[in-house]
Amino acid sequence: MAKANLFYAQSGGVTSVINASACGVIETARQHRDKIGKVYAGLNGIVGALRENLIDTNKESASAIAALRSTPAGAFGSCRYKLKSYEENQREYERLMEVFKAHNIRYFLYNGGGDSQDTANKVSRLSLDMGFPITCIGIPKTVDNDLPITDNCPGFGSVAKYVAVSIREAGLDVASMCESSTKIFVMEVMGRHAGWIAGAAGLASEQEGDAPHIILFPEIAFNKEKFLKKVNACVKKFGYCAIVVSEGAKYKDGRFLADAGGADAFGHVQLGGVAPFVANMVKDELGYKYHWAVADYLQRSARHIASATDVEQAYAVGKSAVEFALQGKNAVMPIIVRGTGKKYSWKVGEARLSDVANVEKMMPRSYISRDGFHITDKAREYFQPLIAGEDYPEFKNGLPQYARLKRILEKKKLKKWE
Amino acid sequence: MAKANLFYAQSGGVTSVINASACGVIETARQHRDKIGKVYAGLNGIVGALRENLIDTNKESASAIAALRSTPAGAFGSCRYKLKSYEENQREYERLMEVFKAHNIRYFLYNGGGDSQDTANKVSRLSLDMGFPITCIGIPKTVDNDLPITDNCPGFGSVAKYVAVSIREAGLDVASMCESSTKIFVMEVMGRHAGWIAGAAGLASEQEGDAPHIILFPEIAFNKEKFLKKVNACVKKFGYCAIVVSEGAKYKDGRFLADAGGADAFGHVQLGGVAPFVANMVKDELGYKYHWAVADYLQRSARHIASATDVEQAYAVGKSAVEFALQGKNAVMPIIVRGTGKKYSWKVGEARLSDVANVEKMMPRSYISRDGFHITDKAREYFQPLIAGEDYPEFKNGLPQYARLKRILEKKKLKKWE
Repeated sequence: MAKANLFYAQSGGVTSVINASACGVIETARQHRDKIGKVYAGLNGIVGALRENLIDTNKESASAIAALRSTPAGAFGSCRYKLKSYEENQREYERLMEVFKAHNIRYFLYNGGGDSQDTANKVSRLSLDMGFPITCIGIPKTVDNDLPITDNCPGFGSVAKYVAVSIREAGLDVASMCESSTKIFVMEVMGRHAGWIAGAAGLASEQEGDAPHIILFPEIAFNKEKFLKKVNACVKKFGYCAIVVSEGAKYKDGRFLADAGGADAFGHVQLGGVAPFVANMVKDELGYKYHWAVADYLQRSARHIASATDVEQAYAVGKSAVEFALQGKNAVMPIIVRGTGKKYSWKVGEARLSDVANVEKMMPRSYISRDGFHITDKAREYFQPLIAGEDYPEFKNGLPQYARLKRILEKKKLKKWE
Repeated sequence: MAKANLFYAQSGGVTSVINASACGVIETARQHRDKIGKVYAGLNGIVGALRENLIDTNKESASAIAALRSTPAGAFGSCRYKLKSYEENQREYERLMEVFKAHNIRYFLYNGGGDSQDTANKVSRLSLDMGFPITCIGIPKTVDNDLPITDNCPGFGSVAKYVAVSIREAGLDVASMCESSTKIFVMEVMGRHAGWIAGAAGLASEQEGDAPHIILFPEIAFNKEKFLKKVNACVKKFGYCAIVVSEGAKYKDGRFLADAGGADAFGHVQLGGVAPFVANMVKDELGYKYHWAVADYLQRSARHIASATDVEQAYAVGKSAVEFALQGKNAVMPIIVRGTGKKYSWKVGEARLSDVANVEKMMPRSYISRDGFHITDKAREYFQPLIAGEDYPEFKNGLPQYARLKRILEKKKLKKWE
């Protein structure tokens, strides 16, 4: 009998370290050629399975796979495509099984956020019902850091480091200029429903007066009067005010400060542009000259300033996912478990997909200062180790060298999927 | 007689390496204690001289001064304050002389762009007329790269590296997502009148299909129809389109694509927000889902990804400025002279301030591709060495450690300046 093959797919918004997880998966699978035949990667995620677009990663050189460890974004393509429930779209699940059977795929490793873990869990159950059991392992990934049970999510530490470094640097810039020019700087960061990323930016402020002075969290209802008062106090005291605002910052009634409209395939509202909104509010009410930045994809793809801790953890969960599969585990996800000692330590643990799926972990209120505008020492203790260490990619001619894969597709065996 | 003192000031928008020039000035002056007494730095630039706010850099430790080499922004404070002509505001020049005399300042080193070189030149001439000759040396600095004569401006290489790295990384992100989600990414970069920064972003594209696919230069009148056609062609061919747009992009009639209104102290219009404008135009006309980023101050303060070449050159022009002063030169500015060999080399040369002042160097048309949407090989040859090499700052707890100066002011001797 042919050896069982493995199917790996990247899902949802990519990060600067999701390819490090892919690297962990593929390198580990290659160490077990006795048990795992081919490692397929879905071209553009799960859609690649539906369309039978299976990238044969065995055709990639060892050095190309190794380079994935320091390559941002999704090297095989990701997708925003959520499988409906089996009841709603039985055909999709049947197609998946058909493709898996046709290519003798017995392992399904799904690298994504809460939605994806839900899908992996469903596939696991259905494959049993359908008589072609698939070992389904989730691999955590999300810059939003909102998966439950795991101490943190691979992808978060690097975006956290990027935003903290960026607001420290831009803060120094504004501090230089504030005497005669810009007094307000507003940096918008990602984080739809939870302020993890915004909170991490708070690490940049280590002494009184350091940027950022104000953080606007989704968790704290925006109070215009209180906010403007705080801005003014900062300008009076420090000469300027550096503000980090989460794209998810909202009013008491739940309205986002700036809603750009539209919705993605998961039904999430697409946000953007809260930075200029806040900057203009300050200008209108207090008259201060402002600048604003929206880092957008720059923050989640900034592999050049990735956290070494994050890279290691991303690799480790990819590696562990393969090991779990080979140990006969199913419908689980490797997680990061933080040690209890004073010095930061971590190890890989596991969680059941059913416990992870569709649960959003919010930032505890105890991480936010009493006035709602900054982080607490407890938050610093949590965040700090996650951004620790640098893991620079290789540079050539002044630019980071990122993996270029061949992405050769396996020959199709089935009819085209519409 | 007391030894002559030196006054150094930072001017205009700061960069990630202007402090490296300050480091070059101070460290070199400290090697000539026989000739130079104190090195004063203006608190917030030239305004510091007018207000007699003179930071005594001799009070800073050698390690603090050394740390300036890897600290972004203006450690002594900069300003957007342009001295009027002598005829218009004689009082200001007289005050400057009064302060310089009171503190026995015989050397004036002014670190800035074209406006500042003009000021330094004026001070040099007036000091002679006023019978208290001051040796005035300009030190080039501008992210805009628009000073004449010098091959390039310290500050530019690092912002160039930042934008090229960023669009490469964000481009990979969009490439991962484009199958089912974002197809258009627009990154706005600085550059009021010249497309140097936008052009440098073009370095990220090394093979066909690499981001950026389109660059919108201030030099090329924006043609909506042609632009949209090109965007569509990129999406059809590569699946997505990554666009770099200069804040100075404008229509044929000279109107900026997005003019945020307002003007700075030099009379330049303050720009921003062209990225969302362009992104929305594409969405409206072609229907593609978009993301956009405005890096703003992040790009010019990103010391964590500074160009090693840029850092070295910034230091060298600071060092040379002191050496020029000690050699009896006056009203000159150290410049970067590129070697003529195949392999990149550079040395410090000099230019007369009168030749530098208020001249803006535009990007040659030969650097822009025939269709106006990208750079040529000639441009690559020019840009590439300027972003070469990495010069990482020291990190602690995951964050770059930047200099914290004491900034102790010299005791005032004069009446308050109103």
